[in-house]
Amino acid sequence: MDADAMQPVDSPELRQLYADFKAQHLNPLWTQTGDLMPRHPRPKAVAHVWKWSDLYPLAQASGDLVPVGRGGERRAIGLANPGLGGEAYISPTLWCAIQYLGPKETAPEHRHSQNAFRFVVEGEGVWTVVNGDPVRMSRGDFLLTPGWNFHGHHNELDAPMAWIDGLDIPFSYQMDVGFFEFGSDRVTDYATPNYSRGERLWCHPGLRPLSQLQNTVSSPIGAYRWEYTDAALTQQLLLEEEGHPATIEQGHAAIRYVNPTTGGDVMPTIRAEFHRLRAGTETSLRREVGSTVFQVFEGKGAIVMGGTEHKVEKGDIFVIPSWVPWSLQAETAFDLFRFSDAPIMERLHFDRTQIEDAG
Amino acid sequence: MDADAMQPVDSPELRQLYADFKAQHLNPLWTQTGDLMPRHPRPKAVAHVWKWSDLYPLAQASGDLVPVGRGGERRAIGLANPGLGGEAYISPTLWCAIQYLGPKETAPEHRHSQNAFRFVVEGEGVWTVVNGDPVRMSRGDFLLTPGWNFHGHHNELDAPMAWIDGLDIPFSYQMDVGFFEFGSDRVTDYATPNYSRGERLWCHPGLRPLSQLQNTVSSPIGAYRWEYTDAALTQQLLLEEEGHPATIEQGHAAIRYVNPTTGGDVMPTIRAEFHRLRAGTETSLRREVGSTVFQVFEGKGAIVMGGTEHKVEKGDIFVIPSWVPWSLQAETAFDLFRFSDAPIMERLHFDRTQIEDAG
Amino acid sequence: MDADAMQPVDSPELRQLYADFKAQHLNPLWTQTGDLMPRHPRPKAVAHVWKWSDLYPLAQASGDLVPVGRGGERRAIGLANPGLGGEAYISPTLWCAIQYLGPKETAPEHRHSQNAFRFVVEGEGVWTVVNGDPVRMSRGDFLLTPGWNFHGHHNELDAPMAWIDGLDIPFSYQMDVGFFEFGSDRVTDYATPNYSRGERLWCHPGLRPLSQLQNTVSSPIGAYRWEYTDAALTQQLLLEEEGHPATIEQGHAAIRYVNPTTGGDVMPTIRAEFHRLRAGTETSLRREVGSTVFQVFEGKGAIVMGGTEHKVEKGDIFVIPSWVPWSLQAETAFDLFRFSDAPIMERLHFDRTQIEDAG
Amino acid sequence: MDADAMQPVDSPELRQLYADFKAQHLNPLWTQTGDLMPRHPRPKAVAHVWKWSDLYPLAQASGDLVPVGRGGERRAIGLANPGLGGEAYISPTLWCAIQYLGPKETAPEHRHSQNAFRFVVEGEGVWTVVNGDPVRMSRGDFLLTPGWNFHGHHNELDAPMAWIDGLDIPFSYQMDVGFFEFGSDRVTDYATPNYSRGERLWCHPGLRPLSQLQNTVSSPIGAYRWEYTDAALTQQLLLEEEGHPATIEQGHAAIRYVNPTTGGDVMPTIRAEFHRLRAGTETSLRREVGSTVFQVFEGKGAIVMGGTEHKVEKGDIFVIPSWVPWSLQAETAFDLFRFSDAPIMERLHFDRTQIEDAG
Repeated sequence: MDADAMQPVDSPELRQLYADFKAQHLNPLWTQTGDLMPRHPRPKAVAHVWKWSDLYPLAQASGDLVPVGRGGERRAIGLANPGLGGEAYISPTLWCAIQYLGPKETAPEHRHSQNAFRFVVEGEGVWTVVNGDPVRMSRGDFLLTPGWNFHGHHNELDAPMAWIDGLDIPFSYQMDVGFFEFGSDRVTDYATPNYSRGERLWCHPGLRPLSQLQNTVSSPIGAYRWEYTDAALTQQLLLEEEGHPATIEQGHAAIRYVNPTTGGDVMPTIRAEFHRLRAGTETSLRREVGSTVFQVFEGKGAIVMGGTEHKVEKGDIFVIPSWVPWSLQAETAFDLFRFSDAPIMERLHFDRTQIEDAG
Repeated sequence: MDADAMQPVDSPELRQLYADFKAQHLNPLWTQTGDLMPRHPRPKAVAHVWKWSDLYPLAQASGDLVPVGRGGERRAIGLANPGLGGEAYISPTLWCAIQYLGPKETAPEHRHSQNAFRFVVEGEGVWTVVNGDPVRMSRGDFLLTPGWNFHGHHNELDAPMAWIDGLDIPFSYQMDVGFFEFGSDRVTDYATPNYSRGERLWCHPGLRPLSQLQNTVSSPIGAYRWEYTDAALTQQLLLEEEGHPATIEQGHAAIRYVNPTTGGDVMPTIRAEFHRLRAGTETSLRREVGSTVFQVFEGKGAIVMGGTEHKVEKGDIFVIPSWVPWSLQAETAFDLFRFSDAPIMERLHFDRTQIEDAG
Repeated sequence: MDADAMQPVDSPELRQLYADFKAQHLNPLWTQTGDLMPRHPRPKAVAHVWKWSDLYPLAQASGDLVPVGRGGERRAIGLANPGLGGEAYISPTLWCAIQYLGPKETAPEHRHSQNAFRFVVEGEGVWTVVNGDPVRMSRGDFLLTPGWNFHGHHNELDAPMAWIDGLDIPFSYQMDVGFFEFGSDRVTDYATPNYSRGERLWCHPGLRPLSQLQNTVSSPIGAYRWEYTDAALTQQLLLEEEGHPATIEQGHAAIRYVNPTTGGDVMPTIRAEFHRLRAGTETSLRREVGSTVFQVFEGKGAIVMGGTEHKVEKGDIFVIPSWVPWSLQAETAFDLFRFSDAPIMERLHFDRTQIEDAG
Repeated sequence: MDADAMQPVDSPELRQLYADFKAQHLNPLWTQTGDLMPRHPRPKAVAHVWKWSDLYPLAQASGDLVPVGRGGERRAIGLANPGLGGEAYISPTLWCAIQYLGPKETAPEHRHSQNAFRFVVEGEGVWTVVNGDPVRMSRGDFLLTPGWNFHGHHNELDAPMAWIDGLDIPFSYQMDVGFFEFGSDRVTDYATPNYSRGERLWCHPGLRPLSQLQNTVSSPIGAYRWEYTDAALTQQLLLEEEGHPATIEQGHAAIRYVNPTTGGDVMPTIRAEFHRLRAGTETSLRREVGSTVFQVFEGKGAIVMGGTEHKVEKGDIFVIPSWVPWSLQAETAFDLFRFSDAPIMERLHFDRTQIEDAG
């Protein structure tokens, strides 16, 4: 509705009415600013870029100054959208943090309703233990901790490691849906296998274990390995070169990480994808309901958000709020990890997308 | 997590780190109060009761002082949860307002992404026109305006009429999903048929028009008439008397309003039900993730929320925030309309319910 | 494939090969007639009409000569498609029989995997007892006995009553899926209520009992009453007259009987519908994969099947095999009950439809 | 019902009635043998074993005597269940044939509604071209040709190759659902890539191409490679050894081939699985509604069907009709490919399973 809405004529009676409203915990629709029901989404969250070259040194400094352990639980530094009043919300629905674990450190086990994942832009040596199943974390891997699974991490090496965490904390907090439980102060299994049990059961394309015929709300795959992601994107670009439909637009390959029991999103609130652009590619200009976050995995390019171009490179993270138009430009071959709240929008039928040529 | 979490030792370096965090739009997890990820939902919204005897006179006064028309759009007074800082949110997800239309008035047409319904606790004479289909509003009727349908209202009689509106405005606003469009300044059809076209097509139990085989996101039924609701509840209690399972607990009949194309909820974000208790019945004590609102339709009784009992009667409205335990007690035969955000919780798999005997 | 397929040159070696095939229970594809994999369905079943004026007297005569009781179970006379070698199959999937119950007779209880329904073209006085719930049978009612529900019938009056039964017996028999169990030799409840418990719980449009939130494979409604069917069709034709979309083609109203828990077909293998044509209406010429059966409920008209016109009137039954083109012509106002195996075709993705103007 | 059902007393009137029935294409239920609605499935199909040592030489002889080409279409020899009157039906629903292609031969392209697959027990050198995508066929591969996809085969080598075909021909024929179209007399692409385009797009575990978000009725994977199947089964047995749940019973690993867009069966009518037993393992005795076929891929063992034990080894094929109890016994490590009509049974809700310890 309109901020300039026709308003009642001021009078003592009207002032009394408004006072009575307040006393009775009432608030009339007609005095509210137009943004309660705007013509289109007008997010308070803003488009923003965090540079890896800023983030990583701060994470390192935290490693020196801040202990990790029971209580604080994680040495995680949340990216706080400048439009959201200092809260550690990268968007109204999503949390994104850089997490840092020093040599031989352990982050204790806990579980929560909030759905979580990790993505590794560089480094190795940490295992995350999910419901007792140790999962190696290496560069390019996408790792899942769906809601209500116990999980802790430990660093096996003498070097620190950092990665990003994605969760639905802001959504869960605002909607009052979260539960939390402490688990073991140490991780329950310090083994360091190359492949987790979940992968060994599930990571065979098109093959479902006969012992696992019940569909699961979230994916049973704990780790989506870089070697598979890279191969899938490579094949899409090769097929495109050979003249076959495989990419989503010219020069733009992409995969979605999915739950193999359904073919759908990995978790009920979070979608995750990986995008690869050939050097020189510029994607269509698009806007979508819901918020999305990218991290550059490799290469250089630019993100244009709401008409403003930002140069980005390896490790840089940016958020695109609801209905802000955006386009990617690849200076070099350009690899990006992406996550968003699209499953929320789609399951509640609020999703809308508008696409124009980037021209 | 815990508000008393182990914290790093204060030092100039730490203060510098925290200053750097702020400058870079970062916010560490370990300094945040425990309520970001509480042990169980700790809603800011509080349990609260609004008395119809307070609400209705204020709505009447608005009718005298506040015009209805393009811009303000509706003479609707939102119930503002005392815990939510004065915003017209009855809960973090739901909007509930009393709307008032004077004799012969028209509320102009518009449409929005937000899903809406109306419930009529008393009165008659208004038709709501939904996408051109005039729908009579009478006592006990539950009326739908799912997202993105044009709708306006007009009062045919010389007496005013008030009803309650329910919408997902708070959810839509916080999640940045809303679109809004103005329509006709008048309603597009001033006819006053007894039954809308949607009802004439769809309100035949178990029969689906062969011209309507595509499932719809929201129910195609514009009005769920009181005569059917009353009959369904009457039959459940009769069957219970005859010794057959029909009620949800002894003395407690209930129906859910559903989309006949799927058997599921009427809209993607809002569940609506009607409950009838025999005099003397006390329901189980239950708590649920998500927020729910009741309006007493007829009779007298009490709602116990979080251990506090409130006497309620015809027209009174109360809200139960997430995870607050509650139970109903019927002094007389007791009829209540209910709506909630349960479809959001279920579709995103955050739903949990805990039931104890009321004892 | 082609009956005139290129064949191998005859030789002693070839004859020996064929003999060896036979000895080893083998059968080569290349010697089989083309109809194993025809260009389009070439059913053995033929289009056929049975006249009620022939059927009813024979049912009556059976009533005099044939007892009803344990063992034979039902005085049911199956309509045997002339193309199917005398088997009581009206099509390869469907069974249709006229069943006859004399004054005060009882057909004993049993249950079977086969899904069953009854449709009443005339008469009254019989109750079918389904899992202990007595269901009145009256003219125009469509009554369900989904697989594995105990059921028996009894005639309360001093006059006989006949109706048609529809089942998936041929499908079940050929696919080896059937189980059968005897129940009580009498019906378990001789009460004669006007409405069954299933109807009292479920026949309130758009309202779902809160005690019944689990979806069911088949509809929980035991009887779809004529008064509702008639009203739904009447409204469709009125809406059409008023200029609103409601019918499936000009002058042709139709409803599908559905499971209110899903909005889908009443049983997994059988679809049931009711069609009403205004006098003078001729439907589009259509052909469909799967077989369908109609019974004229009221009025006079013609069915054109495979180019041949047959005059039909009240009670007449006709079958249209797979892919035979057909069209209905209404001489008077023309009401027809229809059932088919469409759910089998759709669930296994063999459904195809071709529609042309009847011209 | 019962073959010994109570029958009416013989009389001239009764004989006249029966004659009238016949004249009017009617067939009473009460005179039919009990097997129309038996107590449990009593299939005409029988349990039977075909020895590879019999099949392969006959296929070879066909290669010498029978040309392959347009008209006959395929040099395929159907396994004819001894209980089904010589028809090339291995069960009422399923077709299983050995197909043989000589050096450099081509089987021309066509398409049909019937769903088809191939499984390769030995050999290599043939490519099947499915909708223009050439798919290599090698030992252990499971290859799909879902309904209505053009397909032809060609042998690239100077040696012949044989494999088994599985289709739903008997179901399609009896239910009158089949369409057929001839395509190119040669295959449309004689390229011999190691991996088909479908595999290159889809065979990355848990990763879905963003260009392929529409779910498909049948799997988009043309070839399920032996290397993946073998690895999945190996991992299950290793996990079992390590004490983790992974197999379906002790010593019995198994995978189901699935459609990655849904996690469900590869085609609407056919389920396919691969089973691996450790030497010495004996499976539970089980019976199921629906028919199933196995081919031994490697190793030696026995199948007990209906109480009779049959020794089987590499290449041997056996069919288990509906509701016949069966158990597998592994003499050596024992690998078996399996296919069945289970999706038909489950989608139509006729599925039942009974399991006992093999003891």
